[in-house]
Amino acid sequence: MSLNPVISLLGRRLRLAIIGGGPGSFIGAIHRIAARMDDRYQLVGACLSSKPEKAKKAGRELGLPAERSYADGIELIDKEAKQKNGAEVIAIMTPNDSHYLYSIKALESGMDVICDKPLTNSLEEAEKIYQKVTETGLVFCLTHNYTGYPMVRQAKAMVEDDQLGTIRLVQVEYVQGGNAREDKIDPEKIPWRQDQSKGGASLVMGDIGTHAHHLIRFITGIEITAVAAEAGTIVPERTFQDYAGALLHFNNGARGIFWVTQAAAGVENGLRIRVSGTKGTLEWMQETPQQLLFKPIDHPCQIYTPNGPGILAFASRASRIVAGHPEGFPEAFANIYSDAAEAIAARRCGKKAESLAMFFPKAIDGLMGVQFISKVLESSQAGSKWIKIEPYSG
Amino acid sequence: MSLNPVISLLGRRLRLAIIGGGPGSFIGAIHRIAARMDDRYQLVGACLSSKPEKAKKAGRELGLPAERSYADGIELIDKEAKQKNGAEVIAIMTPNDSHYLYSIKALESGMDVICDKPLTNSLEEAEKIYQKVTETGLVFCLTHNYTGYPMVRQAKAMVEDDQLGTIRLVQVEYVQGGNAREDKIDPEKIPWRQDQSKGGASLVMGDIGTHAHHLIRFITGIEITAVAAEAGTIVPERTFQDYAGALLHFNNGARGIFWVTQAAAGVENGLRIRVSGTKGTLEWMQETPQQLLFKPIDHPCQIYTPNGPGILAFASRASRIVAGHPEGFPEAFANIYSDAAEAIAARRCGKKAESLAMFFPKAIDGLMGVQFISKVLESSQAGSKWIKIEPYSG
Amino acid sequence: MSLNPVISLLGRRLRLAIIGGGPGSFIGAIHRIAARMDDRYQLVGACLSSKPEKAKKAGRELGLPAERSYADGIELIDKEAKQKNGAEVIAIMTPNDSHYLYSIKALESGMDVICDKPLTNSLEEAEKIYQKVTETGLVFCLTHNYTGYPMVRQAKAMVEDDQLGTIRLVQVEYVQGGNAREDKIDPEKIPWRQDQSKGGASLVMGDIGTHAHHLIRFITGIEITAVAAEAGTIVPERTFQDYAGALLHFNNGARGIFWVTQAAAGVENGLRIRVSGTKGTLEWMQETPQQLLFKPIDHPCQIYTPNGPGILAFASRASRIVAGHPEGFPEAFANIYSDAAEAIAARRCGKKAESLAMFFPKAIDGLMGVQFISKVLESSQAGSKWIKIEPYSG
Amino acid sequence: MSLNPVISLLGRRLRLAIIGGGPGSFIGAIHRIAARMDDRYQLVGACLSSKPEKAKKAGRELGLPAERSYADGIELIDKEAKQKNGAEVIAIMTPNDSHYLYSIKALESGMDVICDKPLTNSLEEAEKIYQKVTETGLVFCLTHNYTGYPMVRQAKAMVEDDQLGTIRLVQVEYVQGGNAREDKIDPEKIPWRQDQSKGGASLVMGDIGTHAHHLIRFITGIEITAVAAEAGTIVPERTFQDYAGALLHFNNGARGIFWVTQAAAGVENGLRIRVSGTKGTLEWMQETPQQLLFKPIDHPCQIYTPNGPGILAFASRASRIVAGHPEGFPEAFANIYSDAAEAIAARRCGKKAESLAMFFPKAIDGLMGVQFISKVLESSQAGSKWIKIEPYSG
Repeated sequence: MSLNPVISLLGRRLRLAIIGGGPGSFIGAIHRIAARMDDRYQLVGACLSSKPEKAKKAGRELGLPAERSYADGIELIDKEAKQKNGAEVIAIMTPNDSHYLYSIKALESGMDVICDKPLTNSLEEAEKIYQKVTETGLVFCLTHNYTGYPMVRQAKAMVEDDQLGTIRLVQVEYVQGGNAREDKIDPEKIPWRQDQSKGGASLVMGDIGTHAHHLIRFITGIEITAVAAEAGTIVPERTFQDYAGALLHFNNGARGIFWVTQAAAGVENGLRIRVSGTKGTLEWMQETPQQLLFKPIDHPCQIYTPNGPGILAFASRASRIVAGHPEGFPEAFANIYSDAAEAIAARRCGKKAESLAMFFPKAIDGLMGVQFISKVLESSQAGSKWIKIEPYSG
Repeated sequence: MSLNPVISLLGRRLRLAIIGGGPGSFIGAIHRIAARMDDRYQLVGACLSSKPEKAKKAGRELGLPAERSYADGIELIDKEAKQKNGAEVIAIMTPNDSHYLYSIKALESGMDVICDKPLTNSLEEAEKIYQKVTETGLVFCLTHNYTGYPMVRQAKAMVEDDQLGTIRLVQVEYVQGGNAREDKIDPEKIPWRQDQSKGGASLVMGDIGTHAHHLIRFITGIEITAVAAEAGTIVPERTFQDYAGALLHFNNGARGIFWVTQAAAGVENGLRIRVSGTKGTLEWMQETPQQLLFKPIDHPCQIYTPNGPGILAFASRASRIVAGHPEGFPEAFANIYSDAAEAIAARRCGKKAESLAMFFPKAIDGLMGVQFISKVLESSQAGSKWIKIEPYSG
Repeated sequence: MSLNPVISLLGRRLRLAIIGGGPGSFIGAIHRIAARMDDRYQLVGACLSSKPEKAKKAGRELGLPAERSYADGIELIDKEAKQKNGAEVIAIMTPNDSHYLYSIKALESGMDVICDKPLTNSLEEAEKIYQKVTETGLVFCLTHNYTGYPMVRQAKAMVEDDQLGTIRLVQVEYVQGGNAREDKIDPEKIPWRQDQSKGGASLVMGDIGTHAHHLIRFITGIEITAVAAEAGTIVPERTFQDYAGALLHFNNGARGIFWVTQAAAGVENGLRIRVSGTKGTLEWMQETPQQLLFKPIDHPCQIYTPNGPGILAFASRASRIVAGHPEGFPEAFANIYSDAAEAIAARRCGKKAESLAMFFPKAIDGLMGVQFISKVLESSQAGSKWIKIEPYSG
Repeated sequence: MSLNPVISLLGRRLRLAIIGGGPGSFIGAIHRIAARMDDRYQLVGACLSSKPEKAKKAGRELGLPAERSYADGIELIDKEAKQKNGAEVIAIMTPNDSHYLYSIKALESGMDVICDKPLTNSLEEAEKIYQKVTETGLVFCLTHNYTGYPMVRQAKAMVEDDQLGTIRLVQVEYVQGGNAREDKIDPEKIPWRQDQSKGGASLVMGDIGTHAHHLIRFITGIEITAVAAEAGTIVPERTFQDYAGALLHFNNGARGIFWVTQAAAGVENGLRIRVSGTKGTLEWMQETPQQLLFKPIDHPCQIYTPNGPGILAFASRASRIVAGHPEGFPEAFANIYSDAAEAIAARRCGKKAESLAMFFPKAIDGLMGVQFISKVLESSQAGSKWIKIEPYSG
């Protein structure tokens, strides 16, 4: 096996430019670590601020020359597209309302795209991105990073391997405490996430609900066909949504429950999923990501660990180390970047990527996430009555 | 402190007779262990089978003389009531549909009652029991045994002590795997739980849903005012309900989610509750009952343990041993029996029991549980729309 | 199966008298709960204090008539032995230095004995008890209660079933914090445990070291043949030992390590054992006793639970409840009492007890525990050089 | 704060060359990820094989030009030293017996060094490296990577902050299963670790014992002054050591126990440490590295998490992400690389690095580790008698 499949394919790393994620951004640093982890990308340009001086300073700290630091994302795409050895992949980590603009521009410029979730704030924009991706045949990777964890991939692979039998019940929850305190509202300085025009109609659904939604679909392979939901605001005098609960129907008859909130004081990052099939139950928690519990119907509970016994190919390719040496959130994020890199490099030299590299989240997944938000809100506004969901076929 | 408060009060143990729980019954053995644990009851009579010979044999194995082994519960109550030194407390662990009959008879005979949950299968019967208890002033203890765990009591005490602040979010779940397999249906031998005329309209709600419901109320002290729910059957060709999910509104504005099932293959006895207030979040799981996690908003997560540091009086009185020596389900069950014994003994000698002994579940709690089942089913039949709940005041 | 094997054999419960464990004693309450749990004993007499009035008051609180409350253990044995329907089993929970006196007296009076550990403070006394037990053929049960936990029994049964292969490595530790604080020394009120003439030469070894030692032998079935050890005092100005560490050689060539202390501030009751064989490793912790981890060499780690899948007969007979309902320390203690009761009842009616009832700790185990203490101290005094141990054959 | 302190100091990344860690090496991949993680190094040269073609192919896969791929480590150092913009930092990840050669050569060539542990196979070589480092003033970083975990750093910082009080007891263990199977011995293909001339006198001590030893010293700040130990071979017909146990005396009077093995079948990477002081006990396990348990003597057990509440500066600077997003082994390894980079960059521009960056393991720590191995073996050969250790002062 090559030490670097992208270099082996292309003779070089992929040229990456990033829009967003400047100084102070949590997710920006993570994107850059993820891009660097497996050495498949070379950062060649960035738009790290809309203020030219700030953008240049930050770019310099990332080792970029001044002329490759931009203060405008569209300008970045335009200039990089024209430049010899310009960026060929654009990573977008801006506020949600600009994902559409930069995605479409990058795709139209022939660039492959890595984009933060949620895909967009509106279903219309999401559909257009999906169409553009389909038309262009370019790679579009959406960073539902939790699917990069080896044990999440093991869960998916065990379901596909029929180790769970027919899936009957799904429990998913994403509980955080980051918005547990009452807000200090300064109308001049509302964070973009809390501003519906930028962050979307439901902060909690866009921020973490889409992760929970995608995690269900990724692991189980079944689709939600109806939802009875309530999304709302529990912290007094708050102007954005901070919790949502839903009952779920699936296309194979399974039933599920969904709970997300950012108002649970003291909780850190409690994404958890449990899936019960006829043969047993899987349990995974993001806060202890290196454990996947499987409770078979007739045997003692088993703890799967990365690169440990019983690990299937789709999971083991997501680990860099021998069993017992924990990898974490950055490595999971990097797995998304690295799989996308394999797909991009293969496409760029007219080959097919290894099939196990092709399970990173894509525009269709983003579209379904945006659709799910809209259906949850529709049900909530209709007194939690059941709303049908027609899955897109991707 | 006395080694045995009942003997100290009465000069003897309480005379107990039991109806139900014969050979092969899981819960019968538990009731008897619970009654024995703290030595506050003397078993004096039993109806362990409707077949006289089987009843006598089982009674003999419990050390009872033949004449105190009955094949009919009503006969037991009648004869014990007339007997010199007859039973003064009746414990009922029969199928749900007979709880009403024996409870009313025992109360009318001046006996204190310990009864399995759910209280009854119908709201009407539940209301009548509650009225009879109120009229007679007798003790009526419902065995929502999970409230006997020291760490559940610590949770309640911490809420009352305002260590959580205002409660905002509640997650409760009770997940089991006992009914995960498809049923082998022999119409002649349907277990009573699966027969709606005996087990009630919703097996899963009666069996475990009422425990989850009571646990919320016990710990938080707030009441559910509306529910949007679905209860149904996930295992094919099954005639009884095996899952229920619900969104909850509370009387203080809090929100909650509720999930119960017995069809999660491989899961043992997963009762879990999480309560978030403005100051932090509590988490408790029945399968590791000696740990109560408290995640304060500004401090590291704390693990409370029975008789460990920070334990409040209501919890410490529920432990028999120094910290680090686990007690379990039987001790929790026994705590309910023992508190009821203190209340009964005090009543019988015209005194007041210690106030911390008075938190065992009562008829009013059973009534609210039966009401909750009916509202969950009503919402489920109405397409999961919101149904209001008017709490009884007890 | 009978609801009560002792009543089925004898037509009644065993008549038990207890010496020691009066008001304020932790272990006395546990012994009485353990005796009551499975209803195989009837308490008929007690010596709960050397002060007659205090003894009578405590006896009354346990429901005993005044004439069966004694202020002297020898008197109790004498009078109960002569009394019609007097005690036939004596349970001894006095300071260690009197175990010998009461054990010999009870055995000489034809009574079966249940005795707290350590067996004695001297090897000579321990050998004499063992000889007396052998001569009389009476039952002598030593309360190494941790062997009553279902998952400890599962561990033993898995070893016997060759699921571990050849045992190679053993790690045992017993870490507590009860003696972490510096002592407030009042020479008039030294607790008996801290007084070498009563508590023995090494508090930490007698109190918890013998438990750790027995746990190794019980689970693995191999014997320690040499020890290199240090036992000493870590808390300043203390007059008793509070830690001991040892390297171990076993008769099959295995190697081990041993660590016990009561000076680890903040630790509750951390008894833990790990056993590695050629096929995998077992791990058990007293503070989460309902989990037994098995890490097979080629499969994912498995979590065995009481009455869950894969549980062997010797373990399942130690559980009273279906899987997922934790039992604890009192039930483990009760398992020792109940197995001894089966052995005693069988002996008293000239039958053989069920073979799985015969694994409770006996005088031979106590003798080996006392021998182990002496060898640890001998090595420690000799600069931790290796000291051979010649196992007794029991 | 700068996005990249090295670029901010030097205007560029540090130029790094690596010796060892070619295709198939676990640790080589980890070193390269660690160097890349925080973007403080640029890989400019490598010796990845002693076979020129293999070395070049591997170098090409890492993006190196052919002329910077070497087949000999000394040649690499020579040529890079003379080259304009040649490597200024050498990372050594070769078999233990060559650490000395490359370290001395690199130091003599004015290069800063990052070297795998153990420092050397002999005390004499270790002392010479330490002297050379002292003479040259160059940075020498030894990759005791476990000290890079945020929670290990929190432990150290809590000890320094006196949150534990006086340290009294230390338990350390490092248990693995990688060498549990009997060896298939092909005398032609003995792995270098198992060949004493390359791997050193004690495989288990060199491989993992030094990690355990350093972890104690790093966290507690106290030094081992005597050891009574046994090191040996438990797996039959094996020619290298696979377990070692030791009792420890410390310079402040504390006592400890030490256990390492690679023969525990089924165990993954069980490095664990517990430290008890007068105020409480810390517990950390490598397999769940994002949790640090603190059991205060008077308060409930607390779970510290990276970037969670109560985290001290030395720990928080080791996290890249907000609380609840696990980092793992690669990030811990990278923390060592990144701190060394800050020290190197500061030195190279005549400045002092931030004081919190200066706690990476150094030559003195490696020297003490080699000394500890020698003393363990000396005690083992002398029948486990106590051997004094005179700590080096660094």
